[in-house]
Amino acid sequence: MQDKSRMGVRLTGAEASFHAHHSPVGAFGSFTCGLAGARGGLGFELGKPANQDIYVGVQRGSQEGSAEIVCLPFFVGSEDAAARYLVEQTNAPQKGSGVLAFPLDRMTRDYGFGSDRFSVEGLEFALYTPVEPLPDPASATRGALRDALLPAVIATLTLDNTGGTEAITAFFALAFEESGIEFLNGEEHRGRVGFTWRDKLGVLGESSDGPEPFLFSRFSLPDGLRGRGAPHRLGTVPGIGFTVPPGKRRTLTLALGWYLAGKVTTRVETSYLYASHYASLRDVLTHALDRANELRESARRFDAFGASRSLSADRQFLMAHAIRSYQGSTQLLELKGRPLWVVNEGEYCMLNTLDLTVDHVFWELAQNPWVVKNTLDTFARWYSYTDQCGVSFCHDMGVHNSFSPPETSSYELSGLTGCFSFMTQEELCNWVLTGACYWAKTADGGWLLQHRALLQRCLTSMIARADQHGIMTVDSSRCAGGSEITTYDSLDASLGQARNNLYLALKCWATYLALALLGIEREACLERASALGNAVAARALPSGLLPAVFEADSKGYSARILPASEALVYPMYWARHARSAVAETARAWLSRDGRFGALLRAIDAHISAALDDPEQRNVFPDGGIRLSSTSDNSWMSKIAIFQHVAERELELDPSVSVSALFQRADRAHAVWQRRGSAQFACSDQFLCGVAEGSRYYPRCVTTWLWIDAASQ
Amino acid sequence: MQDKSRMGVRLTGAEASFHAHHSPVGAFGSFTCGLAGARGGLGFELGKPANQDIYVGVQRGSQEGSAEIVCLPFFVGSEDAAARYLVEQTNAPQKGSGVLAFPLDRMTRDYGFGSDRFSVEGLEFALYTPVEPLPDPASATRGALRDALLPAVIATLTLDNTGGTEAITAFFALAFEESGIEFLNGEEHRGRVGFTWRDKLGVLGESSDGPEPFLFSRFSLPDGLRGRGAPHRLGTVPGIGFTVPPGKRRTLTLALGWYLAGKVTTRVETSYLYASHYASLRDVLTHALDRANELRESARRFDAFGASRSLSADRQFLMAHAIRSYQGSTQLLELKGRPLWVVNEGEYCMLNTLDLTVDHVFWELAQNPWVVKNTLDTFARWYSYTDQCGVSFCHDMGVHNSFSPPETSSYELSGLTGCFSFMTQEELCNWVLTGACYWAKTADGGWLLQHRALLQRCLTSMIARADQHGIMTVDSSRCAGGSEITTYDSLDASLGQARNNLYLALKCWATYLALALLGIEREACLERASALGNAVAARALPSGLLPAVFEADSKGYSARILPASEALVYPMYWARHARSAVAETARAWLSRDGRFGALLRAIDAHISAALDDPEQRNVFPDGGIRLSSTSDNSWMSKIAIFQHVAERELELDPSVSVSALFQRADRAHAVWQRRGSAQFACSDQFLCGVAEGSRYYPRCVTTWLWIDAASQ
Repeated sequence: MQDKSRMGVRLTGAEASFHAHHSPVGAFGSFTCGLAGARGGLGFELGKPANQDIYVGVQRGSQEGSAEIVCLPFFVGSEDAAARYLVEQTNAPQKGSGVLAFPLDRMTRDYGFGSDRFSVEGLEFALYTPVEPLPDPASATRGALRDALLPAVIATLTLDNTGGTEAITAFFALAFEESGIEFLNGEEHRGRVGFTWRDKLGVLGESSDGPEPFLFSRFSLPDGLRGRGAPHRLGTVPGIGFTVPPGKRRTLTLALGWYLAGKVTTRVETSYLYASHYASLRDVLTHALDRANELRESARRFDAFGASRSLSADRQFLMAHAIRSYQGSTQLLELKGRPLWVVNEGEYCMLNTLDLTVDHVFWELAQNPWVVKNTLDTFARWYSYTDQCGVSFCHDMGVHNSFSPPETSSYELSGLTGCFSFMTQEELCNWVLTGACYWAKTADGGWLLQHRALLQRCLTSMIARADQHGIMTVDSSRCAGGSEITTYDSLDASLGQARNNLYLALKCWATYLALALLGIEREACLERASALGNAVAARALPSGLLPAVFEADSKGYSARILPASEALVYPMYWARHARSAVAETARAWLSRDGRFGALLRAIDAHISAALDDPEQRNVFPDGGIRLSSTSDNSWMSKIAIFQHVAERELELDPSVSVSALFQRADRAHAVWQRRGSAQFACSDQFLCGVAEGSRYYPRCVTTWLWIDAASQ
Repeated sequence: MQDKSRMGVRLTGAEASFHAHHSPVGAFGSFTCGLAGARGGLGFELGKPANQDIYVGVQRGSQEGSAEIVCLPFFVGSEDAAARYLVEQTNAPQKGSGVLAFPLDRMTRDYGFGSDRFSVEGLEFALYTPVEPLPDPASATRGALRDALLPAVIATLTLDNTGGTEAITAFFALAFEESGIEFLNGEEHRGRVGFTWRDKLGVLGESSDGPEPFLFSRFSLPDGLRGRGAPHRLGTVPGIGFTVPPGKRRTLTLALGWYLAGKVTTRVETSYLYASHYASLRDVLTHALDRANELRESARRFDAFGASRSLSADRQFLMAHAIRSYQGSTQLLELKGRPLWVVNEGEYCMLNTLDLTVDHVFWELAQNPWVVKNTLDTFARWYSYTDQCGVSFCHDMGVHNSFSPPETSSYELSGLTGCFSFMTQEELCNWVLTGACYWAKTADGGWLLQHRALLQRCLTSMIARADQHGIMTVDSSRCAGGSEITTYDSLDASLGQARNNLYLALKCWATYLALALLGIEREACLERASALGNAVAARALPSGLLPAVFEADSKGYSARILPASEALVYPMYWARHARSAVAETARAWLSRDGRFGALLRAIDAHISAALDDPEQRNVFPDGGIRLSSTSDNSWMSKIAIFQHVAERELELDPSVSVSALFQRADRAHAVWQRRGSAQFACSDQFLCGVAEGSRYYPRCVTTWLWIDAASQ
């Protein structure tokens, strides 16, 4: 059980205190844990952490009445409890008065890609969330699918009492808001004990190297530990404990699982796909414990993978954090026997928001290309629509497990000019770009054949929305007098407005390339891309900067936006991932001497000018990246794309040291997540470093690009 | 639509501000509404009110921008909003700034048995919760059962604009915590519109005398009313509105419904019986609106029934309030095709707590005797057990939809001497007494035959727990060194301890009578009852008082307890409800000249002494009844039984004016409920008039005894 190789970023003290998701894939469940003084625990289908105090700790002292209980600080009031603990360490102890907390400054947290482990004074609590491929249900064996869909994560609780002189009890407990707990402690569990809540979530534990652990439950942790062996069904604090004699080191292995049976969504009635592969929550928990070693090994391999990628500690942290929040947002459903993949939009819980899908694609194509196809097909079949210009796609498929009627999203409304307006142009780009990435990665000719007519309609629709240069100038008739927005809905005019928008113009440019790549009127598309690229390049100001909005009277005209370079990520991806002839074509599109040279040089100059700025208008005081010089709101997911493009593709002025700039920025962004988003695990939108929106969010998985590029 | 006959208690101002359940039978759902400045709304399977702001009000002003929105005060912040409203009435209006509230002092509330209506300035919002018999599924037709099981209540919203000069919009809206709302507004709804949440609860509305109502939904009420016609799927405040032109009076009829499909309980897996009779929530809401007039008429008949019973206004209020909370706690489940009746224990959500069952029996035998049999049979089959003395029954069947393993309760634990210890003796009495009441009411010979052997075992068990006088002195072996308690678990020693307890001794006395009534060793039982009665009578102190605990060194020895008379309620019930020969026997048992005369006279003397007390030790300063002179905790359900027995049976000293005492007490108790339990609808345990436990509770339906007796 010795873990000699601690893979991951080591954090101590206050830096170690932040929530992280710990989730299986496709179950939309999370064991959220890690922030001192806060609740978390086992939740499902939530846009925020669950609401349980988490008690992981030790009980010392042989007499029950005078026992001292000290826990990791993952419960409300733990800060006071830590202060009391310190007092008791230095002064006369006042034992038995409640639950104490280990002070943060004695705790270390090793945060890897696959494991998250907390260590303090001989106690180690580790959570394992391996990320393994999810086989395509269309071709996978039932056994492989059952393993892959397992809606559970594994934890271990190890107590090292080798230097001790008396027995110590260690335990894992959760304080629920209400009772209704079933206890698992019969003979049929073969020495394992656990508890479940409403048959929907639960914990099963096993001592691999000692006697059977014991179960407890009362209204409080101390009462529970006193009343061990006779759990109270009214109790709200169930737990599992085990005792380690002096001279010994023992481990409790825990399975934390979820199981929602039956219909879980409305309008379109679906169930979880795992429910076809597991009979019950007990089946889930049992199977998870049976596979515990395997899952731990897998998590460790993922730790090692993250550690082997020549990433800075800050980037390792940011990626590990992002992958966890993405994983916790995934939901693999079953509709009439067929899989339906959903990524929930963090705190907003919108289903498959398409402007997130296009950002998730780099990660997901590395993991499970078939789910990208699944999402593309679902949009094509139910969530596309036609306005006066032609076809486009809905912003999302619904919200909070409620599917929207076909051809509509939960987000978009008519008659608006800002947030909640339509994203018709951008979602049109997003579907095409996602498709092109899918095809580049998989060379799935069947998919292309299936959607050729739709792609052709996409091209027609693209053209109808643009002026003669290809710049989007026509708002969708769905706006009904309002105007379209972009995915940057909560930023200011520099990125929010779709019409005459630099960011969107370049996304359209990439979309024409995508259509060319897919063989849709290839030369015509390239011509349009050329025209559009040249038109954009021609907008460059004498400073080299490109206006964020091509309207001199717009507030966005003088804004400096870094997402001007975002669209390059697509040809970069194709150049890395497509089979060689196609990749070569994409690479040629990125040549400064090629047909888009003018545009590319304009982007180089624009970003150079933005970064080589004495006033540092695109950098926050802490070094974090400011996507738009006129907004305090900056998005981590998009920053990662920008960093990837700037590092790997842009030809910047020698005066710009991207390396130094980004090293400082990565540090700041890690602090944003740990401090500015502490309660909400990984968040996307930060207002001066504080997560004010898009919290508990999947989108930062764009950080995968740092590895995707590095591994080539 | 004119309601000339306002049946019920009229309340105004602060007196009108308190929550009440509005619930169908058997759905464990409630629309909880009525407390100013608080949330409530549609909840299911909760031990407390749901958490929605309820907006029922009007929008005046033709221009959308300057519209004034005024609501009943059923939302958080409504007190501030009311203050602003008053300001705006007297000073220059500042319109459009948000939502105003009608001040409480302009609102009247007519609180009847079946309807609850709020009226202010031409607006009337009425909720109808008829109580109709629930036919026995074993014999009922499917149509009758479908109607009776309807998991919905009806509301009406009427706006009288006959004197107005401009159109006014009225609306009903709920502010949910999160979105995921489906809208019902297609052609298939035939002019009705509504909204549902997770297919589990929802509202459907119909304008009976005007154009189709409109649907709205945004993040706030004002935004929703501005955006009418285009509900936002992200919106959290869905609502239904209608416009009344000047000179008109119009009504919106609303169905508020619940529908939980599939398995809803754990360990014993059951579904709601209504789910076998309704295909979906939409089916429920549609059927409810189809039957709206019928349901309103039924509620009005129940209003009229309550008003016709010669009750004081305070008693009418207390009964109406109690019936609503009882109804909201009921849950009719289906287990393998058979009905399973559950009453949830208010805020604690324990299933079929047997010491509540015995109190509910008076009401339920008037409504649906078959559910009493159902509960008795469930206890007999799964929730009875045997200790060293013989058979007894579990305290309950589980908690929060989680059934306990057979022969165990969720409440009872070994090794205790207070709260959560076993109630073995008392639950034994409770099952027998409930059975005797059932048999007395129904003369169901089949039931008696089925349980004769068990009843015989009950007698054996009774004897084994008692001393030679029949006083309970043997604690159950399940206590494992602890000692038994009574249902008065949270009171002090006067009522909490089972051994040598006056209250329990008399319950045992009644249990012997019950067994005699049921023909179980009739003479032997009567002998034992005589002996026990005489033994108790012999404990009388020179003052005439009976010690609460027959242990001179107990703190309870000198306590004065009014529940000393509680056990008389059983022979009184049999005397009223059994067929004549049996009734006559029971009546004879109550004769002061009969074989229990000594005991009865001792009780008369005890209560006389307790009430004729210059120090008023059994009365709170406000006039409310204090069940035990040594406890500030007093229980409304038990007070009602005491009042019934004192008024109808006891032969008290002429110096005691029960009538004056109870008139003042009823007033105090009504204030306890409305002020001391405002947030929790009807509660049972009051600490100096404030509900500190047993809140949102079914048990106060013992107030039915006031009518049960009066109607003879």
